[in-house]
Amino acid sequence: MERGFLLVLSGPSGVGKGRVCDALRQTDADILYSISATTRPIRGGEVDGQNYFFLSEEQFLERIEEDAFLEHAHVHGNRYGTPKDFVLRNIDSGKIVILEIDVQGALQVKRNFPNGVFVFLLPPSMKELKRRITDRGTESEQQISLRMNNAREEMGFIEEYDYAVINDDLDRAVESVLSIIAAERLRVIDGRALIDYLEEEVHD
Amino acid sequence: MERGFLLVLSGPSGVGKGRVCDALRQTDADILYSISATTRPIRGGEVDGQNYFFLSEEQFLERIEEDAFLEHAHVHGNRYGTPKDFVLRNIDSGKIVILEIDVQGALQVKRNFPNGVFVFLLPPSMKELKRRITDRGTESEQQISLRMNNAREEMGFIEEYDYAVINDDLDRAVESVLSIIAAERLRVIDGRALIDYLEEEVHD
Repeated sequence: MERGFLLVLSGPSGVGKGRVCDALRQTDADILYSISATTRPIRGGEVDGQNYFFLSEEQFLERIEEDAFLEHAHVHGNRYGTPKDFVLRNIDSGKIVILEIDVQGALQVKRNFPNGVFVFLLPPSMKELKRRITDRGTESEQQISLRMNNAREEMGFIEEYDYAVINDDLDRAVESVLSIIAAERLRVIDGRALIDYLEEEVHD
Repeated sequence: MERGFLLVLSGPSGVGKGRVCDALRQTDADILYSISATTRPIRGGEVDGQNYFFLSEEQFLERIEEDAFLEHAHVHGNRYGTPKDFVLRNIDSGKIVILEIDVQGALQVKRNFPNGVFVFLLPPSMKELKRRITDRGTESEQQISLRMNNAREEMGFIEEYDYAVINDDLDRAVESVLSIIAAERLRVIDGRALIDYLEEEVHD
């Protein structure tokens, strides 16, 4: 009865997308995670079709030709992409598929699949974002400055998104995403199907 | 920081709009209820500006001229309307204003104020709606049949609405409306304001 959909969770580097996704995993059985395709070699312990769909360069390029990706990118000599069929198959069966992705990727997805639900994860403030990036202790002054510039540029695309969630407190951010999921499940997409359902005699 | 908005809760007669609204009243201090204007005489115990805004026929017609209502109707010789200024003033200050109204009224509101959030409350099934109307024991066979025809006609407008909530269980229906409210508070309306806010040094 309830509709499935793709939820794209995106935002600047350092904002905590991964943590929010990990926490979401603990909550609802009806949430699935999009599995990426990649050309990078499989590592020990990884399972094809579970961690990634592992493809050869040739296979990957063939899929691009077939328009089989919602988005794809070339990173440090390896290709990564979001297979369209996995997403469509699962949302057709009423599932929610979550895709955690950077802003560039999300904008590509939006062009290919505007029916998704696009959530932008924000830091509590730019100052706090800088603190989070700095506290990692792995970045030089210059890298930090570059990351902050990127973050500001990416935030300029916020109006391409449906919702903005401020990640000040992990539990609250997860609660917000769950509210978005609950609400979007109730969105009127196919009124006729809804009416037909109510005219039926028996429901579970 | 979070945006205010008008939430229109509507649906066929007998579906339980009033009960859902009453239960919502118990939950969140930031929810207000739209107060109607009417030309019907004030009754003992009623307070002007609280139960209704009581207006003379002349005042009411003047307001119609001024386009001061989101919707208005003429019922059994009395006029009823939803004053626009009460709604706008409160949503501008970040409040959620709830308007419980029949489908005809909701469609009028939508023409005048498409930025509202429109929620259609549905019965679990048409059979159950008929049972609810019949169980009141106040309606003749013919009246029940008329009500069911009206309900079906009204449900034909469901695609004018943003969300559909099935009122099978009161608590669950209220929970669903609260999720819609929580999600809609996070909707991206003014990205620039959001970014400016994050650039500020200090937040509460």
